[in-house]
Amino acid sequence: MTDQLRVAILGASGYTGGELVRLLSLHPQVRLTALTAERQAGKTLAEVFPHLGYLKLPTLVKIDEVDFSQVDFVFCALPHGTTQQVIAALPQHVRVVDLSADFRLHNLATYAEWYGHEHLAPALQTDAVYGLTEFARGAVGNARLVANPGCYPTSAQLALVPLLESGAIESSDIIIDAKSGVSGAGRDAKQANLFGEVAEGIHAYGVGAHRHAPEIEQGLSAAAGAPIIVNFTPHLMPMSRGILSSCYVKLANGNKPDDLRAVLDKRYEDEKFVHVAAPGVSPATRHVRGSNHTILGVFPDRVPGRAIVLSVLDNLVKGAAGQAVQNMNVMFGWNEATALEQAPLFP
Amino acid sequence: MTDQLRVAILGASGYTGGELVRLLSLHPQVRLTALTAERQAGKTLAEVFPHLGYLKLPTLVKIDEVDFSQVDFVFCALPHGTTQQVIAALPQHVRVVDLSADFRLHNLATYAEWYGHEHLAPALQTDAVYGLTEFARGAVGNARLVANPGCYPTSAQLALVPLLESGAIESSDIIIDAKSGVSGAGRDAKQANLFGEVAEGIHAYGVGAHRHAPEIEQGLSAAAGAPIIVNFTPHLMPMSRGILSSCYVKLANGNKPDDLRAVLDKRYEDEKFVHVAAPGVSPATRHVRGSNHTILGVFPDRVPGRAIVLSVLDNLVKGAAGQAVQNMNVMFGWNEATALEQAPLFP
Amino acid sequence: MTDQLRVAILGASGYTGGELVRLLSLHPQVRLTALTAERQAGKTLAEVFPHLGYLKLPTLVKIDEVDFSQVDFVFCALPHGTTQQVIAALPQHVRVVDLSADFRLHNLATYAEWYGHEHLAPALQTDAVYGLTEFARGAVGNARLVANPGCYPTSAQLALVPLLESGAIESSDIIIDAKSGVSGAGRDAKQANLFGEVAEGIHAYGVGAHRHAPEIEQGLSAAAGAPIIVNFTPHLMPMSRGILSSCYVKLANGNKPDDLRAVLDKRYEDEKFVHVAAPGVSPATRHVRGSNHTILGVFPDRVPGRAIVLSVLDNLVKGAAGQAVQNMNVMFGWNEATALEQAPLFP
Amino acid sequence: MTDQLRVAILGASGYTGGELVRLLSLHPQVRLTALTAERQAGKTLAEVFPHLGYLKLPTLVKIDEVDFSQVDFVFCALPHGTTQQVIAALPQHVRVVDLSADFRLHNLATYAEWYGHEHLAPALQTDAVYGLTEFARGAVGNARLVANPGCYPTSAQLALVPLLESGAIESSDIIIDAKSGVSGAGRDAKQANLFGEVAEGIHAYGVGAHRHAPEIEQGLSAAAGAPIIVNFTPHLMPMSRGILSSCYVKLANGNKPDDLRAVLDKRYEDEKFVHVAAPGVSPATRHVRGSNHTILGVFPDRVPGRAIVLSVLDNLVKGAAGQAVQNMNVMFGWNEATALEQAPLFP
Repeated sequence: MTDQLRVAILGASGYTGGELVRLLSLHPQVRLTALTAERQAGKTLAEVFPHLGYLKLPTLVKIDEVDFSQVDFVFCALPHGTTQQVIAALPQHVRVVDLSADFRLHNLATYAEWYGHEHLAPALQTDAVYGLTEFARGAVGNARLVANPGCYPTSAQLALVPLLESGAIESSDIIIDAKSGVSGAGRDAKQANLFGEVAEGIHAYGVGAHRHAPEIEQGLSAAAGAPIIVNFTPHLMPMSRGILSSCYVKLANGNKPDDLRAVLDKRYEDEKFVHVAAPGVSPATRHVRGSNHTILGVFPDRVPGRAIVLSVLDNLVKGAAGQAVQNMNVMFGWNEATALEQAPLFP
Repeated sequence: MTDQLRVAILGASGYTGGELVRLLSLHPQVRLTALTAERQAGKTLAEVFPHLGYLKLPTLVKIDEVDFSQVDFVFCALPHGTTQQVIAALPQHVRVVDLSADFRLHNLATYAEWYGHEHLAPALQTDAVYGLTEFARGAVGNARLVANPGCYPTSAQLALVPLLESGAIESSDIIIDAKSGVSGAGRDAKQANLFGEVAEGIHAYGVGAHRHAPEIEQGLSAAAGAPIIVNFTPHLMPMSRGILSSCYVKLANGNKPDDLRAVLDKRYEDEKFVHVAAPGVSPATRHVRGSNHTILGVFPDRVPGRAIVLSVLDNLVKGAAGQAVQNMNVMFGWNEATALEQAPLFP
Repeated sequence: MTDQLRVAILGASGYTGGELVRLLSLHPQVRLTALTAERQAGKTLAEVFPHLGYLKLPTLVKIDEVDFSQVDFVFCALPHGTTQQVIAALPQHVRVVDLSADFRLHNLATYAEWYGHEHLAPALQTDAVYGLTEFARGAVGNARLVANPGCYPTSAQLALVPLLESGAIESSDIIIDAKSGVSGAGRDAKQANLFGEVAEGIHAYGVGAHRHAPEIEQGLSAAAGAPIIVNFTPHLMPMSRGILSSCYVKLANGNKPDDLRAVLDKRYEDEKFVHVAAPGVSPATRHVRGSNHTILGVFPDRVPGRAIVLSVLDNLVKGAAGQAVQNMNVMFGWNEATALEQAPLFP
Repeated sequence: MTDQLRVAILGASGYTGGELVRLLSLHPQVRLTALTAERQAGKTLAEVFPHLGYLKLPTLVKIDEVDFSQVDFVFCALPHGTTQQVIAALPQHVRVVDLSADFRLHNLATYAEWYGHEHLAPALQTDAVYGLTEFARGAVGNARLVANPGCYPTSAQLALVPLLESGAIESSDIIIDAKSGVSGAGRDAKQANLFGEVAEGIHAYGVGAHRHAPEIEQGLSAAAGAPIIVNFTPHLMPMSRGILSSCYVKLANGNKPDDLRAVLDKRYEDEKFVHVAAPGVSPATRHVRGSNHTILGVFPDRVPGRAIVLSVLDNLVKGAAGQAVQNMNVMFGWNEATALEQAPLFP
């Protein structure tokens, strides 16, 4: 098909890169014409991802080897930091969804504070559109560069942004206790992520200091119309995919937990990928595994004046590659669900 | 679409039933018009399978409540034993893929020996086509009733049938050491399948006495043209999906391990779902998870005159629901891969 | 050894019963003289717990078959409800540690509210000593009947009681987000606890309505000197053993997070089984697995005026059988750590 | 206690080193006086193994920093290769159990063939005693240097040596299909051992070429009195600890499977750590987890003239640190089970 979009994936040997290939293998309007992996260049995709070996795809190359004049679109799944320079060097005709953290924070000072250095492409940072799809379709549609949200921030914002926008909850003392699968930590060899170190256990990490906190706060502050500082406490647990965010909130303006549910029901009634579970049903990460779905739940708290909002998604799909594809679909005016219709895999 | 096939799934609340729904949700020529579950009748599918709740599907009913005059096709995912009578009672216009063991053994005496009672629908048993798709397309295409192979037998036969047919291996002393995920044991509440009983461990079961042994022997004997008795030793291990069969065989007629590889390469070169791994690459179950693919591997043995043939598949897909859909596609002359194009899910 | 205590375990075929046998197999002052299991009576322990088969222990019997005149001490690991009548019927010379919930709540109305029926042994309930060992040695030492705390309540109270007693934290808006392994759900065959239903996922359960909430509130209220209602939200995750309680609290009286650490350091400096992790170190359940240890951690919160207190233990040891043995040791004036000196098992 | 043995562990930051500390923490005749870790030198043990942090143990140092004049005994848990030189440099008064592969193979040519270089301490290699305790108590008791057997070889030899010695099975066509937990691969950061790469899957590795094959063959050949080549096929599966060896053998001299059981029963009737499961009971790795026990099982094969022998152990205990402690106990004439009495941990 000569009219297929010519797509490059930069950083195709990581989990997010592999997931992009998995999803895009079902996308009729996309042709993968370049896959890069600096350290694995020269290998076939089958060598780094045997599960994708049956697809006939280009051999891995270095970014320098890509002829971007023959590329229409880039998914950039590189580590933060290096991303800035790579994207700054792309020709203008190439539209981009960036899956790193590099273009998510609008405030340059906040970026410098959390990442330890000045941003290297400040102009681009200002232009980038923060692509939480359900809240940004118009801007995403017109964007050249979309900053794909982080996995935790997607989970938390889908649960909390409508509640803050509507004034249904207080903006103070929001506590987000998040539990994540291990793939969120990437595919690099690290002792802490060995099977033996992760299986049969759980622990909190980055307590009070995780880089997704300012990203969450940026979105929630915009929703509330005032600066918000949240408690965000991620935990690493023995599963490969999935995030559950358990959000503990204070009810505002005399609202009841059912009012929160009503706000979310209304906000997402036309959404294909965001669902509100029936009363009493607790969302489980395994019920969205491998899919682009998010499921929310609302529960009353025993403590008067409080409620519990639960949110589950697959960190590699709605939390990364799936939302990236969703954004690409919006950028080109295609059916937003193209290549994202697969049902969750359970068990 | 008025020309969609009206399909019923009998036994929709088990893992195989849920998997059929997952796959068929992407099948453009199929409409699910009835889902049965005797003990869960009256519930929505979302109640028994929350991961499928976003699909708009019929409420679960009892088999007696189904009007089969409005059904064109049945996937029967009931326990063996009851299956025979249910299928015998279906009207003649309904074509069937049966996923139980009831119609897999052609020999009535063998059935009675392994299942402890006479077969209740002997005439149907004789008519049923054993649907190992890659070896039976012609017969499957013309069949009214297809007996879908067992998960272990599919795994073992895809590895060994071409080798026996070609005379590349001896028919004596074939040892099949198989490792399976837990979903193969079904969704019924059993202490032995609790998380705490299965996690972090492995054990053999049904040693020397598993009901899949005669099914494997039936297929291998036909391939060899003489009766074969095999060692088949299944092991239960902590994963939800997947089977790895490690087959230990004797080389025949002066063949070398590479000759075995050549036989398999040739046999499967045009197959979409069966692949032979490159020399030195060991197939892993996680590389077929959620997909209809089978990957085979061939290795030399340290013991002279012997070889090792490895075979992996997802027991719920190629080992059950996927092959069932593949057979339905063949029965109606559709593209055999329809609804089966999803890539494996890794990690 | 004629002076060994003759001990019976009632309910020896459940996980808690098996764990009591495991620990007591190393106790020099104890001889197991009766093991009961109503449904498994007549079987050897090896048949229900093959890992304990090498021990030479009595065959399982029904409670009615035990001659309690020959028993000095009982560990009662029966389901709540039935426990009350069994313990009420024991002769007075028998001292008891009860691991059910039946004698934990001092308030009979609270019991009736949460368990749906009047207590059947109200007199005993009043006498029972709540055996959170570190806080109750005196009373435990003199008790005939000790109510062994629940797993979640042990975890939460060890973290929070000293902080409330010292006035270091507010008593309002305490949020306890707890994550538990599956063994806490018992060994009965339930679909929800099958490997396939639990592996690779997490979900909250009993949200706002778990029976351990009133037990936690009883202890925290006593510590604060005023009634407390807490948020307690348990989550089920794929591990066999372990609880992590992530407690989100408000600092009181101008305290800083380090002041909380100082309170806990001081409170537990002489304790053998309760440890406060070094600053910045996040306690992990896998670091207490199989042992009677609890590890606490204190972290500052990004939200001003708040802190995070983490608490890990093994639900079957310090959360059940280990604390029960610890209580028995206190009841008889033995070294409190006898049979509890095993190091955690990692990985 | 001034008469405690002063023990050093070389390589204390790996899984085997940590396991030695865990076991020896209960050994009354041992005092750990030096712990080495080249890359982690200067850290406390709590920093590398938080689960052992409550023990008061020496800080990690480099081997060069150890004063071996103050050391009576060394457990050497270093990588193969470097081990040879380290042990060769130890003063003569120091007795050693070496847990590497360096001194296991008696034949220097075999060593060079499998490890790719000449042995650097050939004299020591000849002196070293192969410490499969149950078969070598006399020699171990007198040894200065014991080569602790590999995990797989321990599992296979305990199952097969008595059968070969007694002539109950043929020495040809022995097939050993082994399944191992991940801790056997060590604690070094490797992508292949990340949680996401191991969970929910299984694959064979080192097929036909694993370095434990010659070690197994050395032991079996000695038992048979003639050279044996075996099929040894290890598989990596998602559990932290445990090995199951499924051994497929030919019956010799008219023996029946029950005759094999009789041979094993007799051989191990007085052994504390090796057990033969009752007929029909399939040994599971989870039933030996954390303990020094091995459980064997014997089953008839459907193929006439063949049998199946199953063998389970914990690769870090009987397969490494536990057997090392057992050997030390023998070397000093202590109760062989000292520090090894802990029951398995299940679930």
